[in-house]
Amino acid sequence: MTKRNLYLSTIPVEEALSIYMESLKQVLRIQYERIAVVEGLHRVTKEAVYAKYCSPLFNAAAMDGIAVMAERTYGATEVSPVELCEGEDYVVVDTGDPILHPFNAVIMAEDLLESEMGKVKILSSVNPWQHIRPIGEDIVAGEMILPSGHKIRPMDISVLLSAGILELDVVKRAEVAIFPTGSEIIEPTSVPQEGDIIESNSRMFENMVTVLGGVPHRFKTIDDDYDSIKNKIQEAVTLYDMVIINAGSSAGREDYTVEVLRELGDVLVHGVAMKPGKPVILAIVEGKPVIGLPGYPVSAYIGFENFVRPVLELLNETVGEARVSIDAVISKRLVSSLKHKEYIRVKVGQVEGKVVAAPLARGAGAAMSLVRADGFCVIAQNSEGVEAGEKVQVELYKDPKDIDNTLVLIGSHDLILDVLADMMPNHFRHQHVSSTHVGSMGGLMALKRKEAHMAPIHLLDEETGEYNASYVKRLFQEPMAIIKGVHRVQGLMVKKGNPLKISSIMDLKGHRFVNRQRGAGTRILLDYKLKTLGIHPSEINGYDREATTHMALAALIQSDSADAGLGIQSAAKAMGLDFVEVGVEEYDFAIPAKYLDLPLVKNFIALLKSDEWKKRLEELGGYTCEQSGTYYLL
Amino acid sequence: MTKRNLYLSTIPVEEALSIYMESLKQVLRIQYERIAVVEGLHRVTKEAVYAKYCSPLFNAAAMDGIAVMAERTYGATEVSPVELCEGEDYVVVDTGDPILHPFNAVIMAEDLLESEMGKVKILSSVNPWQHIRPIGEDIVAGEMILPSGHKIRPMDISVLLSAGILELDVVKRAEVAIFPTGSEIIEPTSVPQEGDIIESNSRMFENMVTVLGGVPHRFKTIDDDYDSIKNKIQEAVTLYDMVIINAGSSAGREDYTVEVLRELGDVLVHGVAMKPGKPVILAIVEGKPVIGLPGYPVSAYIGFENFVRPVLELLNETVGEARVSIDAVISKRLVSSLKHKEYIRVKVGQVEGKVVAAPLARGAGAAMSLVRADGFCVIAQNSEGVEAGEKVQVELYKDPKDIDNTLVLIGSHDLILDVLADMMPNHFRHQHVSSTHVGSMGGLMALKRKEAHMAPIHLLDEETGEYNASYVKRLFQEPMAIIKGVHRVQGLMVKKGNPLKISSIMDLKGHRFVNRQRGAGTRILLDYKLKTLGIHPSEINGYDREATTHMALAALIQSDSADAGLGIQSAAKAMGLDFVEVGVEEYDFAIPAKYLDLPLVKNFIALLKSDEWKKRLEELGGYTCEQSGTYYLL
Repeated sequence: MTKRNLYLSTIPVEEALSIYMESLKQVLRIQYERIAVVEGLHRVTKEAVYAKYCSPLFNAAAMDGIAVMAERTYGATEVSPVELCEGEDYVVVDTGDPILHPFNAVIMAEDLLESEMGKVKILSSVNPWQHIRPIGEDIVAGEMILPSGHKIRPMDISVLLSAGILELDVVKRAEVAIFPTGSEIIEPTSVPQEGDIIESNSRMFENMVTVLGGVPHRFKTIDDDYDSIKNKIQEAVTLYDMVIINAGSSAGREDYTVEVLRELGDVLVHGVAMKPGKPVILAIVEGKPVIGLPGYPVSAYIGFENFVRPVLELLNETVGEARVSIDAVISKRLVSSLKHKEYIRVKVGQVEGKVVAAPLARGAGAAMSLVRADGFCVIAQNSEGVEAGEKVQVELYKDPKDIDNTLVLIGSHDLILDVLADMMPNHFRHQHVSSTHVGSMGGLMALKRKEAHMAPIHLLDEETGEYNASYVKRLFQEPMAIIKGVHRVQGLMVKKGNPLKISSIMDLKGHRFVNRQRGAGTRILLDYKLKTLGIHPSEINGYDREATTHMALAALIQSDSADAGLGIQSAAKAMGLDFVEVGVEEYDFAIPAKYLDLPLVKNFIALLKSDEWKKRLEELGGYTCEQSGTYYLL
Repeated sequence: MTKRNLYLSTIPVEEALSIYMESLKQVLRIQYERIAVVEGLHRVTKEAVYAKYCSPLFNAAAMDGIAVMAERTYGATEVSPVELCEGEDYVVVDTGDPILHPFNAVIMAEDLLESEMGKVKILSSVNPWQHIRPIGEDIVAGEMILPSGHKIRPMDISVLLSAGILELDVVKRAEVAIFPTGSEIIEPTSVPQEGDIIESNSRMFENMVTVLGGVPHRFKTIDDDYDSIKNKIQEAVTLYDMVIINAGSSAGREDYTVEVLRELGDVLVHGVAMKPGKPVILAIVEGKPVIGLPGYPVSAYIGFENFVRPVLELLNETVGEARVSIDAVISKRLVSSLKHKEYIRVKVGQVEGKVVAAPLARGAGAAMSLVRADGFCVIAQNSEGVEAGEKVQVELYKDPKDIDNTLVLIGSHDLILDVLADMMPNHFRHQHVSSTHVGSMGGLMALKRKEAHMAPIHLLDEETGEYNASYVKRLFQEPMAIIKGVHRVQGLMVKKGNPLKISSIMDLKGHRFVNRQRGAGTRILLDYKLKTLGIHPSEINGYDREATTHMALAALIQSDSADAGLGIQSAAKAMGLDFVEVGVEEYDFAIPAKYLDLPLVKNFIALLKSDEWKKRLEELGGYTCEQSGTYYLL
């Protein structure tokens, strides 16, 4: 077996950053360039900018009317108007026209009586300098317009031009080279093959660099070859201000990055006590920052935010946009290790004034959790975690106002929840539906803890054969309601063509089954069916193998990683699987009765009654919705 | 006199917007286009995007190690290790490698004992599917990745590519034609002539359009000619999604815009009850929005924000960034009229936890007030204004965190305040100095009302001939301190070469003087000198003509709009004027003693003691600073 590059130690995030930034400040030189003001949007001034000219450049009429000598108007009253002659006593002016000596006041057009051509009468005298914008009223030549280190806004550009400034010195945008590495990595494709890993991190980095005001230069993937990596880095540090190398920093067999960087320059940090994102490399080569980021997308993102961002802000002399931080209570226990600072993606919702953060998938590979999250909950390195209901700080990356305008659903998973989330803002501007999947029972528990507005559930009462109502009645003291959702078809998903000829739950024995997680209504349905049939769970090969959504389960069957699983017809259809119907169930929304009056809930109900909803259910297949949107009190 | 286009009525802002948007929604058609995902940053999705492939695309190793069949590991313990042979029992895998049938678990490299080449021993059995990322764990083919109407972020691009999506449909960026109009308007130049008005609004619009995700097309200025304007608009509505015409919407003699628009299409609104910004025109021509914005820069800005922005957001299907709104108390009385909604630019500061908004210049032409402001205080149309100390809402356009990190100075004007504001963030990251100019006495009053941390003052005690301390002692009960600022030279500014041979205040009679505003220390100095010399203010021609800063006053003299004024030497020098010294005065900072311990104040004192400070005072001229930064308690 070839040599493995196991890192020996990790250091705390703050310490890693401080070590690196201090070293960089010794060697980095901020660069400047002269640019046209009209190209200046969002650039950062090198030094204070002073007005070259006044604005207005001259005494200017502030009104449409006539320019006069104030002295000639003295004595004018309603009973003894003064007559003025054009050319001699006045000239006609529009707003902005220069007022030249000897004129020293303007009379508004509205205050003039035209007596005859070229003559006007006025009914009152005027003060000198009336309705005149004095030279420099807005901008005075020589005054400071913008300080140094200022990020230029549209209004600044306008004022600079008015003050006669056509060019200025700004901080040069940092040019950042981005190198993906790894022989197994392929360029994005619409026809990937098994074993291919689509390179996508570099495209995230590229756009993150752009957002931070840098100029990204993204290169094609470098093979895992010592000399290829070395040559590319050597060349890049001469051409660019910063280098990012991706995926070459985990402890895999073929990761040469850290060795190359040790040969070419100084590796100040290799391994940071954070999760995800541990295998970060912070190096300096020829005075340029070179950062190795891990390959897993969430690790890559967190590594970038913690280390690339501050370096880019240093190079660009920009000040990071303050991320909005809010207090929330965490919806479930989070265990963490004292060994690292942990970044947990969370969905954030507001129920009865209480802000709740619901943790999403924690895996470093869960890129979708970045997309779905509203922000991060950070658990400090010296903490063992937080208990459910404890207060946490959440760094939001969405607008806090959106939190208030979001209907929070926690419970059972179904594809229709995504459809409703898509429909909500299209029908009701600025309103959103957020859903977290913890199974039907988990959803009811969350509802009890006031962490959700409603819980999507499908719970069969084995005694009565009825769905949902009995569970809700049993669990809640307060008045509750059930909003009817859909009838959906549950059944066995099997491979296309059903090669194993599985036609009922009886046929599962001997084949590779995948189950849903504990608490999922579908698992409860399976248990009920197994009990009815007298089959013990241990007889099912794979009873303990879990998938957390219908779609994830379908994917395992489609890829021949399992032979069968219980789930909804729409998921089987989406994945091109065969489907053996087991039964129809009622998928509804449990809700405290008092929430029925919330505008968000009313709008949600309106969606369930809409024609678009019916149309979209038909497209999905496996649903009926006669009662969608009706509700009854329990 | 030619016909003037006086508008008869104005309607409330909200009503104007609602009339216009409702009409636009009848005729506008949102356009879409297909683009490459890698070009998708900040574009808005047309419809929900579903994953084409799973990610991972296959069951993949989650660790570096070996892939095994779990069954073959059963029975392994520390005392009876199991030996596995490469190729037969296991294959070596790196993180991300596919795990193919019949392998169904991964053992980490760290848990292996290498016995001989091609053989390993394990000390415990493993469960099936251990350390394997199942296919679709992150993204499942067919699941919704992004909803419709979603603004694409860097992380979204990465996930789309991972899911096999290379192209997608997005909202087409609105193409906006921008036409400045006006025969007196010139393109930006570094050598403007008297009478020239530099066209700069269109450059502000251009960049505002860019910030809102549109594509600006800015054209050269159109002359005030009916047919020219008509032809341009007719052509533009066929080529672009929206048209902005600037400056052609006030009631001036030569403003043909509204007539042209009435001929070509529908003018829905002409004149909105807001200030600044009243002469807005909202029209629709050939189904395209055409908006006329006023020529004054602040009016132009407010017209854009109120009317162009919502139309652009409609066309781009974007949701406006929520502007941060904070509660503040207003530092002085604002009188407003019931006739319009008024937008007042304010500087915002935080003193002892109280957030204070200080109004800036209210003129529509005060473009610098847009640059200097931290936000807007909006006075509703049905309000007559607010009293000093009343609570107002301020729409911020700076980061609220900056408010907390800003030292607030209110008082006398001097050029050195701009220099200190420039130095602060350069020496102390994220810290700022804000100054508002209301004269020395006004500054002390603001300090008393806890609206500032310190007041820059230069107040001569006529009885003792001493500066500052006696005024502060008289006005304050609480312990106060004086931080020494600079000695500065005051004197008469006169034209270059002093053609009128003004050599003292005695020589002012008969010439055109400009005074400073009431409450300014410099005016108090003049009054003191006049009294000493036995001259009555009525003997000074222009005693009542006021300029609010030293530089504004210098500009009036430089442009021959006045002959002389009293002010500081640095302003005369900056403006190339001759200067007749009248005396040296002490310009200091009055401060409540308890603020001396604030970090912001300590840093401010450090600036006053720095070498850079001495150097910059020398560049300005007219200052000495032996005691700068020392302080004494009163």
